[in-house]
Amino acid sequence: MTPFGRHEEYTARELFGTAADRAFEDAGISRESVEEVFFGNFMGEFAEEQGHQGPLAAEAAGVSAPATRFDSACASSGAAVRYGVQAVRSGRADVVLVGGAERMTNISTAEGTHALAAAADALWEARAGVTFPGAYSLLANRYFHVHGGSREDLAHVAVKNHDHALDNPLAQFQQAIDVDDVLEAPMVCSPFGLYDCSPMSDGASAALIVSEEFAEKQSLAAPVTVTGTGQHSDSLALHDRETITNTPAASRAAAVAYEDAGVGPDDIDIAEVHDCFTIAEVLALEALGFYEEGTAIDAASDGATTIDGELPTNLSGGLKAKGHPVGATGCAQITELTKLLRGDHVNSKAVADAEVGLAHNAGGTVASCVVTVLEVVA
Amino acid sequence: MTPFGRHEEYTARELFGTAADRAFEDAGISRESVEEVFFGNFMGEFAEEQGHQGPLAAEAAGVSAPATRFDSACASSGAAVRYGVQAVRSGRADVVLVGGAERMTNISTAEGTHALAAAADALWEARAGVTFPGAYSLLANRYFHVHGGSREDLAHVAVKNHDHALDNPLAQFQQAIDVDDVLEAPMVCSPFGLYDCSPMSDGASAALIVSEEFAEKQSLAAPVTVTGTGQHSDSLALHDRETITNTPAASRAAAVAYEDAGVGPDDIDIAEVHDCFTIAEVLALEALGFYEEGTAIDAASDGATTIDGELPTNLSGGLKAKGHPVGATGCAQITELTKLLRGDHVNSKAVADAEVGLAHNAGGTVASCVVTVLEVVA
Repeated sequence: MTPFGRHEEYTARELFGTAADRAFEDAGISRESVEEVFFGNFMGEFAEEQGHQGPLAAEAAGVSAPATRFDSACASSGAAVRYGVQAVRSGRADVVLVGGAERMTNISTAEGTHALAAAADALWEARAGVTFPGAYSLLANRYFHVHGGSREDLAHVAVKNHDHALDNPLAQFQQAIDVDDVLEAPMVCSPFGLYDCSPMSDGASAALIVSEEFAEKQSLAAPVTVTGTGQHSDSLALHDRETITNTPAASRAAAVAYEDAGVGPDDIDIAEVHDCFTIAEVLALEALGFYEEGTAIDAASDGATTIDGELPTNLSGGLKAKGHPVGATGCAQITELTKLLRGDHVNSKAVADAEVGLAHNAGGTVASCVVTVLEVVA
Repeated sequence: MTPFGRHEEYTARELFGTAADRAFEDAGISRESVEEVFFGNFMGEFAEEQGHQGPLAAEAAGVSAPATRFDSACASSGAAVRYGVQAVRSGRADVVLVGGAERMTNISTAEGTHALAAAADALWEARAGVTFPGAYSLLANRYFHVHGGSREDLAHVAVKNHDHALDNPLAQFQQAIDVDDVLEAPMVCSPFGLYDCSPMSDGASAALIVSEEFAEKQSLAAPVTVTGTGQHSDSLALHDRETITNTPAASRAAAVAYEDAGVGPDDIDIAEVHDCFTIAEVLALEALGFYEEGTAIDAASDGATTIDGELPTNLSGGLKAKGHPVGATGCAQITELTKLLRGDHVNSKAVADAEVGLAHNAGGTVASCVVTVLEVVA
């Protein structure tokens, strides 16, 4: 991935070109080997008046191949990864380039908030003034009402993820915060202060997914394999759901991914989850089966999800501190997990025994969810 | 498909719900059988401020399944069909719902033209004022310069496609025109008059793609099968191409689809090609191998591509007369071809012996192209 942050001088295609360069260099695979390109982007129409970005991404990566743009909102490149994996698994391709990019800081925060609202139901939510901090605040307040919990519990999620990003050179914020910082930050939408929210970010991510046969033939070092992938959907509008205290699209995506990989929640050593807002990490931990519904609110404050806890979560810094260029996020979870598992991430040393990682990438208020399981090849 | 035309009172999701209803009714398959949804849409961000339309489309169709939105500009639902076919072929699904929708007439023609320009290179083409009539007019003028041809030759393409749509109840224009009408129409962008251009349209298309096993088990009447699928890409910007008198993304997509199906151009009985402008049909006929480069300009005036010709092309009326709700077009080609091949299209009688059909769906100035081969099951 590129560093995430404010890179308003680069177009989305340039960012993706840089991420692709790094992927090719890391993998030692030629551009000519790529048989298909899967590219995630969400708000190019708003930020750059650019749609139809599959071919543009391929060209930026120096690849001539069928190329398609996937939009699953903030799960766009998670979906791109999933379809890329399936292309390789089905035997129709040996090498695919997957990834995503988003440019967000070249437009104003108000314009960006408006663009992001296109991931919600435009007719019934966005036009009523529901932006994403607003939508997720409904989830948080309802969670508090049903299960208990407080702003302070959520603050620990932000503090933890900032801690994890301290030495991550690709993270947008390499800066420690404490609970008081979170609680005293400007209010965005109750119960969320500024530090409960992931930032607007520019950035791109890319990965090369290859068949086992190709890896063997080319003598590639391939210590990480995708063993599970699952996806599911839900209504975009919150009012069309039976309840808003859980995220069934994530549970169903996880069930498929676990079955696919032949593992369960207990087998996961490290996880990257979609913490676009602090409450989202809590809901993710429950949907993924790590916690019963209503019980993950203390996970961060208890230390269970910190770097030295039982289930280190968002060791990259998460969306909160690593940054959240939405179309790039899903694949960035995969690139960070890959480095963590193979031992060349700044936080690898702390999880040296980790063999199984999970990525949870959500779109909208989890109207789309893609779950991916990665494992170290024995 | 829904009727194509001006339906500004319906949202894109409502249009897709209607198309999906028709697909379920036609196939006699339950909504519960659907395992994945592949939805094409191009300009929802501009027309409805709506992205993230996969889950929205699934909900409109009454389906709970993983759902993804594909954007390959005007080839969006062609790409959705292709990925749906591959999901079934790979064995991971027995039943998928594919399709697309576009709402275009609720915004002004100027706004629509601006939105469509997002399929071109926003940085280098759109900002320089290149709209799609402009981009395709460059292709036409260059073709004339290199190979010869005239506005009158192109006019025959429009006349033919209007003739084909005369009795098609789903077509936007069921109205005959003659060559003089085309030549005397208001100029849009030389050499294109109004009748050289496909219209702004609202509409949706949907299809259920099932495995052979499912069709047999459920005793479905399934007289048409997808035997070939191919896709390729090119640079979005015309200036990045070696020449603009041919469309290599289409040739390469066709080569893959032909090989996949085990057929060649001579085996194709009927074709639906992407005639967004009259010159586009000419370029398609050449890229698909029906004509040598520079020789298809007379195909319509010679009668070769008319309903009683050797290669009846765009019997649905094509984009020109059937209409072109861009995200719906690729799958609509498939639904029309299916009806033509199985004998329940208004134009089926004229091609009663047709057994192999081809769809050519292009995005941008053929920066994306999907080619699909359909065959009657023996």
